[in-house]
Amino acid sequence: MSDTQLPDAEMPEDSEFDEDDRLKPEYVRAVLDAVEQGDAEGARERVEPLHPADIADLIELTPAEQRPALIDAIGELVDGDVLSEMNDWVREALIESLDPHQLAGMAAELETDDAVAIIEDMEAAGQQAVLRALDPDDRAAIEEALRYPEESAGRLMQRDLIAVPEHWTVGDVIDYLRAGEDLTTDFWEVFVVDPAHRPIGTCHLSWILRTPRMVPVGDVMKREQTLIPVDMDQEEVALRFQKYALISAAVIDDDGRLVGMITADDVVHIISQEAGEDALLLSGAGEGDINRPYLLTVRTRLSWLVVNLGTAILAASVVGLFQDEIAAFALLAVLMPIVSGMGGNAGTQTLAVVVRALATNQLASSNTWWMIVRELRIAAANGAALGMLIGAGSYLLYHNPLLSAVFAAAMVINSLVAGMGGVLVPITLERLRIDPAVSSAVFVTTLTDVMGFFSFLGLATVTGLATAG
Amino acid sequence: MSDTQLPDAEMPEDSEFDEDDRLKPEYVRAVLDAVEQGDAEGARERVEPLHPADIADLIELTPAEQRPALIDAIGELVDGDVLSEMNDWVREALIESLDPHQLAGMAAELETDDAVAIIEDMEAAGQQAVLRALDPDDRAAIEEALRYPEESAGRLMQRDLIAVPEHWTVGDVIDYLRAGEDLTTDFWEVFVVDPAHRPIGTCHLSWILRTPRMVPVGDVMKREQTLIPVDMDQEEVALRFQKYALISAAVIDDDGRLVGMITADDVVHIISQEAGEDALLLSGAGEGDINRPYLLTVRTRLSWLVVNLGTAILAASVVGLFQDEIAAFALLAVLMPIVSGMGGNAGTQTLAVVVRALATNQLASSNTWWMIVRELRIAAANGAALGMLIGAGSYLLYHNPLLSAVFAAAMVINSLVAGMGGVLVPITLERLRIDPAVSSAVFVTTLTDVMGFFSFLGLATVTGLATAG
Repeated sequence: MSDTQLPDAEMPEDSEFDEDDRLKPEYVRAVLDAVEQGDAEGARERVEPLHPADIADLIELTPAEQRPALIDAIGELVDGDVLSEMNDWVREALIESLDPHQLAGMAAELETDDAVAIIEDMEAAGQQAVLRALDPDDRAAIEEALRYPEESAGRLMQRDLIAVPEHWTVGDVIDYLRAGEDLTTDFWEVFVVDPAHRPIGTCHLSWILRTPRMVPVGDVMKREQTLIPVDMDQEEVALRFQKYALISAAVIDDDGRLVGMITADDVVHIISQEAGEDALLLSGAGEGDINRPYLLTVRTRLSWLVVNLGTAILAASVVGLFQDEIAAFALLAVLMPIVSGMGGNAGTQTLAVVVRALATNQLASSNTWWMIVRELRIAAANGAALGMLIGAGSYLLYHNPLLSAVFAAAMVINSLVAGMGGVLVPITLERLRIDPAVSSAVFVTTLTDVMGFFSFLGLATVTGLATAG
Repeated sequence: MSDTQLPDAEMPEDSEFDEDDRLKPEYVRAVLDAVEQGDAEGARERVEPLHPADIADLIELTPAEQRPALIDAIGELVDGDVLSEMNDWVREALIESLDPHQLAGMAAELETDDAVAIIEDMEAAGQQAVLRALDPDDRAAIEEALRYPEESAGRLMQRDLIAVPEHWTVGDVIDYLRAGEDLTTDFWEVFVVDPAHRPIGTCHLSWILRTPRMVPVGDVMKREQTLIPVDMDQEEVALRFQKYALISAAVIDDDGRLVGMITADDVVHIISQEAGEDALLLSGAGEGDINRPYLLTVRTRLSWLVVNLGTAILAASVVGLFQDEIAAFALLAVLMPIVSGMGGNAGTQTLAVVVRALATNQLASSNTWWMIVRELRIAAANGAALGMLIGAGSYLLYHNPLLSAVFAAAMVINSLVAGMGGVLVPITLERLRIDPAVSSAVFVTTLTDVMGFFSFLGLATVTGLATAG
């Protein structure tokens, strides 16, 4: 009995994993201690039972300066599968320390899509060296994949698939699969193609297994299928897999010919990445990977902060217009950040909802108008509630009815501005084909800061509150 | 030739879909016009060719008040598959208008997991009515699934699966699959079990198809497998599928017995939902679904805004301590929002990165210390850069070296506070088993607001800038 069959509940106390399936710090330390003491054998013994994905995790959890020693020690355990599971940045650094023949050996074991994922990030010179070291078939397949745009279906697909003609019987298919030694073993569906190699239907393997040998595959296959054009963006591919609950899908070229296949396990990474990316982009943290090199990270975040500095100065200059009023009545300076800050919070809420709805295709032109009305109604309700709250609160505190009225009115105005900005800015950017997750936040918070200060200080001036106060 | 096989590139001009695979507004309008004119036949003809996922989209894109008429018109096209593809909120409203027998009929067609997804959101009375209308086998399966906690593997799994003993040959498996009329047709792997029904290995269907009939499945199966305990949280399930690139996985009970199976197509929804949810939670928009009822949405967002109002008042009260200084030197009020706002931006960047790293298990106890150091170094670099920028800029504008020094110093201090808060707050919450995405933002922005105002106005007071200025 192998111990991998034990359920987690029964996992031995000394398992390498914590309850979240992450490698325990004690385990990582034990391996690194062995490496440091020159006990490569001991390190290898510990690492050997791990799944390639966990070996990749181990390398990621190892401080960058200790990684070369670890890799040296565990040697051939770092294979192509480990590389393809690894974080892009960690892999890139690692690849520089390997020689092209080693890399070519690793790449040759992998399916096209995984090999491409490893090679695509290399510098041109290194890439050429690895490609030259590959055997001609693998090289041709990878070179062709590299000709498709980055993040397209062409990069994501594997070329090894099973395609059969419509007139074959189930028995023919089974005999073909048993006889062909060179055929792939990783596939979940068989594609049925016409003589021009255009897909005309798909058979789940389970249907083939459950059907008598003499039935033609044309009678078993499903004709409705989701075909992925080879140049489709990977985010779009991921949305199709999600929407139609696909396990695999045929990829076709411009002439409708079958050129590859994408499977669900390749898509889950993309779904997670694309969905998680929006929180990072909205915050201006760029792609926000924790393994991204330090200087690159500083640069990305700093450029976003400098843009925000510009908008903060713009908002401050609005305050600057009212310096005399503030000098006369300093309480205005105390209360104004509440108006602008609350507007910023409300705007960010709306923004997050709209950006997510756009990313998941829930928001389309047919329901845009409905969405705008919905968000304005929410903004009106929240603005009214907050306005009453701070109006009443400030009256109890300062007994100045004019101040409370101005404070409350500014809050209502800024809530409406926040709701309107939060919905119109991302929708407009999406129409202009700009990713709303990247640039919406700066527009919306500028709007709520400027309008927050302007409505509050402006109303205070116009009503004579500033001088009378 | 069916037209579904045309690649998107060649899709006819009058397709129902736009380039993002969303239903075109003209199409939605045409269907709804037919419904309004009482032309149910015309509406049905238009909707019939759609995939269930697209019919679900159509219903979601229809304004709520027109949905009952649409459902009436297209009648039996709204089947169980459409229901299970539908947004939770839209489905819930729709279910109230259907009678239990209709619903039971729909649920009976579905796999356990999809049927459970439909029934679990219903009120107890409605649930009982539907369960009574189901046939006993289906009812027992669904009732058992409902006994597992919400969002657990037990709710997610389907009970129909193929399990075979180790001593069977590939030929036995194929004969069993061909003979058993009641067996499921939706499976991607065959589970090999011991006499106590505990899984001991997994066979991809492709391996069975490629192996001669006389080979025992025990020789074909893979013994290493990822077993999912039935009470595992769905987010954890999704992370396993992602990490180990699974297509399906066995679900086991406390005794290690095989009780169900989860497939990748059920998990992609969860991956997308869990990953996308963090952006919404960080912004305080709750689950942020655009189909969530209006009053519920207002309540969620308002409670978050009220919490933020409390923290805004706290920050304002810090400003209140310095009213005299502001009255004497109103420029302080102009510049102070820049310090607090930039701190907020920097803190949000760090926060988004840390929350994402925690959600994807990239941040574990082994690299927490490294992460804290990394973020502090980034904060120091960005703080220094921003400090120099605003120090120099403000000197050019106001020729007041003390003002520039105070302004720059406050910016550096607040950047460090932001970096430290952005990394320590979510890590601490995670340790306390509180979802960091939900509550981190309010702590971090309170921190940067309070410290931004306090460091700037405090330094201005201590250095005598306020009175000298």
